[in-house]
Amino acid sequence: MDKLLIIGAGRAASSLISYSLKAAEENDWEVIVADYDHQLAKEKVGDAPNGKAVQLDITDIDQRRALLKEADVVASMLPANLHMEVARDCIHFEKHLITASYVSPEMQKLSEEAHEKNLIFMGEIGLDPGLDHMSAMKVIHEIRAKGGYIDAFRSYTGGLVAPESDDNPWHYKFTWNPRNVILAGQGTSQYIERGKLKYIPYHRLFSHYDMVDIKGMGEYEMYANRDSLMYRKAYELEDIPTLLRGTLRHKGFCDAWNAFVKIGLTDDSYPIVHSGQITYRQLLGAYVSENGDLSLEEKIANIIGEEVDSEVMRKMKWTGIFNNEKIGLKNATPAQILEHLLLQKWKLEPDDKDMIIMQHEFNYEMSGEKRQRTSTMVLKGENSVNTAMSRLVGLPLGIFLKLVMKGKIATHGVNIPVMKEVYDPVLQELEEMGIRFEEEDVHLEEEK
Amino acid sequence: MDKLLIIGAGRAASSLISYSLKAAEENDWEVIVADYDHQLAKEKVGDAPNGKAVQLDITDIDQRRALLKEADVVASMLPANLHMEVARDCIHFEKHLITASYVSPEMQKLSEEAHEKNLIFMGEIGLDPGLDHMSAMKVIHEIRAKGGYIDAFRSYTGGLVAPESDDNPWHYKFTWNPRNVILAGQGTSQYIERGKLKYIPYHRLFSHYDMVDIKGMGEYEMYANRDSLMYRKAYELEDIPTLLRGTLRHKGFCDAWNAFVKIGLTDDSYPIVHSGQITYRQLLGAYVSENGDLSLEEKIANIIGEEVDSEVMRKMKWTGIFNNEKIGLKNATPAQILEHLLLQKWKLEPDDKDMIIMQHEFNYEMSGEKRQRTSTMVLKGENSVNTAMSRLVGLPLGIFLKLVMKGKIATHGVNIPVMKEVYDPVLQELEEMGIRFEEEDVHLEEEK
Repeated sequence: MDKLLIIGAGRAASSLISYSLKAAEENDWEVIVADYDHQLAKEKVGDAPNGKAVQLDITDIDQRRALLKEADVVASMLPANLHMEVARDCIHFEKHLITASYVSPEMQKLSEEAHEKNLIFMGEIGLDPGLDHMSAMKVIHEIRAKGGYIDAFRSYTGGLVAPESDDNPWHYKFTWNPRNVILAGQGTSQYIERGKLKYIPYHRLFSHYDMVDIKGMGEYEMYANRDSLMYRKAYELEDIPTLLRGTLRHKGFCDAWNAFVKIGLTDDSYPIVHSGQITYRQLLGAYVSENGDLSLEEKIANIIGEEVDSEVMRKMKWTGIFNNEKIGLKNATPAQILEHLLLQKWKLEPDDKDMIIMQHEFNYEMSGEKRQRTSTMVLKGENSVNTAMSRLVGLPLGIFLKLVMKGKIATHGVNIPVMKEVYDPVLQELEEMGIRFEEEDVHLEEEK
Repeated sequence: MDKLLIIGAGRAASSLISYSLKAAEENDWEVIVADYDHQLAKEKVGDAPNGKAVQLDITDIDQRRALLKEADVVASMLPANLHMEVARDCIHFEKHLITASYVSPEMQKLSEEAHEKNLIFMGEIGLDPGLDHMSAMKVIHEIRAKGGYIDAFRSYTGGLVAPESDDNPWHYKFTWNPRNVILAGQGTSQYIERGKLKYIPYHRLFSHYDMVDIKGMGEYEMYANRDSLMYRKAYELEDIPTLLRGTLRHKGFCDAWNAFVKIGLTDDSYPIVHSGQITYRQLLGAYVSENGDLSLEEKIANIIGEEVDSEVMRKMKWTGIFNNEKIGLKNATPAQILEHLLLQKWKLEPDDKDMIIMQHEFNYEMSGEKRQRTSTMVLKGENSVNTAMSRLVGLPLGIFLKLVMKGKIATHGVNIPVMKEVYDPVLQELEEMGIRFEEEDVHLEEEK
């Protein structure tokens, strides 16, 4: 195999492309980078000797298939909803397919066919999902191999702003898809705690956070992700009494974000009438009663259950949501308006550094002793382009691509990276690049 | 015209069928009652000389069309999602179509074609929607005709249990589709107040109710319906500063219902794991934290912001939701489980009477004077079969059918009953049956 096709050259693909071009030079492979925006693809390829940038309209079937036919391995960095077309082509032309996106039920259905054709269809091999699976499975397998029984697994990830670039009262900036941040947690979060299933509806999620201690970093707020239950099977922890996956935020974030949720500003299901003509302050006014002599600030404080001069109100005011400034977005939902406002306020400035924190906590019993293992990774970015986020999404994918190109992967069908033949070499190469999980393993005091 | 087809013979159609059979006898028409359940259709037709019961599988196109072809006017009492098939057939075979359901955007699109073929496609001609439109438009047109300017219109409807049959702490029983009661208000309620658009998200709706005074009945709680804004156009009130449509409940209902909303029990979007094997108490336990020494009752009271011995908690306990009784419903959503529980508790017993309240409030200015007109209808049912609800849904439809059969309706295309040629004769005949709106018109004190 000597030809690699990367579809999509956006911000998410930067680290993947530069890693792949370097590997291509070392191994004499060819890397085709295809994007709808030819210029963008050209910039990402630069003058790399083994790279080639092509223009690709993914909906142009003939053009897409002509490109695919020539490749040995395909990496799709397209938005998740566009993977399926590529996946069906990959089955047809018998090409391996790698993505960082969640494996959809539709994708999962291709597993048998991919398996029969000896194809590697690997999904969820970015950061979260991706690096979380790999680093967790490494510990799970280690503890099991030594005869340990894991009775609680909690895993937390946060895409945050680094302390040195943290200069706003929310202690947060957008380091990835802003829309996903606005809509985070909608639906009902499900997890299992001491053998009991737990459900947290969205309207209670951000008041239901826990404080967790991140080794070497201090305390962070953590709220539950929607999807913990489905990983019991993938992690071979089907009978585990406690399994929780959560998102990390700096202290004070959740209470303040909850104010937006309570008011109704994270709703994406209906457009605000005349959103193009009204101001942010008028929008807020549409969520309070017209009755009474209270100021808008007092009415909002009442709705969110805070004092007017509280820290939460201070954070809200800082965003400009109380200002008489025009929204200027036509036919926009509350969520779209909130995203539009925060895009300015939570912008990562050119020299700002982001920071990824990932920590796993395993409670286990070995030889009659209760112990806790924590595995923690903290990585900061260099600036707003070379972010920790883009490295941690792109590098696992790049390293895995290299393994596939070298014929070192034997697992076929549709999978996520939970097997040793995947996580061992990927984690090892990341460690050589300085991306390391620090482990701590302590005797656990009995709970009172 | 002498042949009427009524599709659907369920509880909703009882009054319509008996009214139509009587009218058929007087006018020498034929009434075909078609239902999937032949026996049900037969029971509803009884030994009426001009009636005929037939079995109809609505998905059997040939059978459906054969029946339709023979009729002059079709009344569809099918679930709303099945109307469209019938509507397209009615266009094709040039038959008039009458329903009590909301006019969907899809149905609205047929208007031009119906108009061209001189067909009457009348929707929303039951109770709510239906009688509300007619009784409101009558007043709106009257005030306008006298030169009045309406600056506020509030309209409330409640399907309740009559005081003499009110024997539970919720002061509520199911008198119509229970599922709709469980899901009521989901989404975001929108209305306009003093010229300002207002949005109330579902998670705040039931704590945001107002108290309204129903003439002769006392105070009721009222929460906003989802859809007030869309009626500005239909009611010819496009620039009205205040327009609100709301639902009435007995005092104490909203706070208690809000407890279920806060916990998350009205959610219909995901199934509870093992819902067939767990108890109601275990279900509640899945919505509280495992931490702490508090009882389940104390934890739930904390979540809903009430004291353990509060009235709201008393109402909740009365439903049996804290009991260790098996749910026994497989793969059920929280909303389905709550409906299952309340079906027993909020059952209308054979001799129970229901009660419909409808009240419109118009604030208007005439000759420099501010006035308020209220128009109020209260109707009680006889028992759990002959309910006020079934009469008030079926009679407007039946009376309108008669008008169409007699060729007295000139309005073609897809419409809702806002025109004088419809509401005048319908309201008049209802009044002859004792279903009367009492009006009050008073000078309004200036607001301080």
